[in-house]
Amino acid sequence: MKYALTLAFNGSNFSGWQVQKNAPSVQAAVQDAAEKVFGSRLPVTGCSRTDSGVHATGYVCHIESEKRIDAKKLPLAFNSYLPRDISVLSARETGDDFHARYSAFGKEYLYVLRNSPVRYPFSEGLCFLYPHALDTEKLRALSQSYVGRHDFRAFMAAGSKIQDTVRRVYRFDVERKGGFVLMRVAADGFLYNMVRIMVGTLLRAEKGACNIEEALASRERRMAGPTAPACGLYLSRVFYGADGLPERADTGEKTETKIAKKGLI
Amino acid sequence: MKYALTLAFNGSNFSGWQVQKNAPSVQAAVQDAAEKVFGSRLPVTGCSRTDSGVHATGYVCHIESEKRIDAKKLPLAFNSYLPRDISVLSARETGDDFHARYSAFGKEYLYVLRNSPVRYPFSEGLCFLYPHALDTEKLRALSQSYVGRHDFRAFMAAGSKIQDTVRRVYRFDVERKGGFVLMRVAADGFLYNMVRIMVGTLLRAEKGACNIEEALASRERRMAGPTAPACGLYLSRVFYGADGLPERADTGEKTETKIAKKGLI
Repeated sequence: MKYALTLAFNGSNFSGWQVQKNAPSVQAAVQDAAEKVFGSRLPVTGCSRTDSGVHATGYVCHIESEKRIDAKKLPLAFNSYLPRDISVLSARETGDDFHARYSAFGKEYLYVLRNSPVRYPFSEGLCFLYPHALDTEKLRALSQSYVGRHDFRAFMAAGSKIQDTVRRVYRFDVERKGGFVLMRVAADGFLYNMVRIMVGTLLRAEKGACNIEEALASRERRMAGPTAPACGLYLSRVFYGADGLPERADTGEKTETKIAKKGLI
Repeated sequence: MKYALTLAFNGSNFSGWQVQKNAPSVQAAVQDAAEKVFGSRLPVTGCSRTDSGVHATGYVCHIESEKRIDAKKLPLAFNSYLPRDISVLSARETGDDFHARYSAFGKEYLYVLRNSPVRYPFSEGLCFLYPHALDTEKLRALSQSYVGRHDFRAFMAAGSKIQDTVRRVYRFDVERKGGFVLMRVAADGFLYNMVRIMVGTLLRAEKGACNIEEALASRERRMAGPTAPACGLYLSRVFYGADGLPERADTGEKTETKIAKKGLI
């Protein structure tokens, strides 16, 4: 049996998703809980690595087990063993060929800025405090340069070994909610630190100190802006089959059709 | 000079507003910060005691000092000394007769329920996890029995010595936001634990296990429901002068007129 779990976690106290020697990881915590729930040590496979300190509201992982457990019972079962900063929000049984990472045809990240010089106790460690005035309309207009199929090499952490740096960004939304600015970006994939560099560059561009189109065209990291802090970043959604539930994903044109059906493009 | 400060605090790690022997309090933290900002030990007077674990998004306190400091500079000055779970959101200079507690003619509290069996890492300690299905419309309808001038003796913690237990509730709003139910209650004053008992009773009433009007009429604590947990409660607003800013408050009919003007009734 294969199960897909959707997790939310506050990443502040974790070195990221992936198991690390001598550092707490979300994956290790979920594996420990899975051992208690299923009664044996099972591998837990995530949809992506996440950086140290990055949060999630919709992370997906899968677990394979000989033992059948009613998927509806898994969230409460896991949550009774997981630490308070991780929660299984939902679970479902999947087909055998489902894979949390390889079946995904896209992801969505949320980046949260607190746009105020004054910090807020309830969002400590959960947003990036940006004290300078921001023009939300201008951010929205500038961010549209990210949308489409581009070579994002300039938006990849220096030292990353990935060769194919072309990605398709489906949308980039900017919304102000009280003292907070929320940015959501959906793409078929993301390079290492890509969202954080996109946000850092956009904030520079809003001040006229950077040009997104020039940065894209340059393919040089130094032409883009700084990497925005991890604490503002949330993996918010992973896109699988056409019904939005974890299923085997197709690739290529068919994927784009599916995404179009889901209103992503 | 007298200054009114509006604070937000996460009350999880405090024994409440008021200075306690051998327990951390919000007042002690603000007094320590005020000593650094003003250069001398000054009394800090709050708008109310709050219970251990109760939060605030709009707590008001006042400080009197010989030294004049531009009020606009106070939030950042205080926040550089305050712990991360307390923040001064705004500050203003007031008239000499302003008093954070006695000038107030009313307060508003927010109570946050997470209405799901599944906990959420980002609201841990910041809401009451209520796993049973709730009918928001029914909650709204039932809660209107609280609105108006009533003897709230049944809604006061046992052992409280207050004699005059009549209070006027201006409004009780219920709103669902995703997996959360927010309740806001504004009144001219609140008895000890009153909001928490109102919420506990309302949740019982929604299940048909309690009757709010009977509980009010009985004036007996045992006729009301349980005290909802402190972690869901936020002091969200204190009402002063007609402009909504800390000013000398009037009492009686004039106060009600002011409140009516502010759209509270």
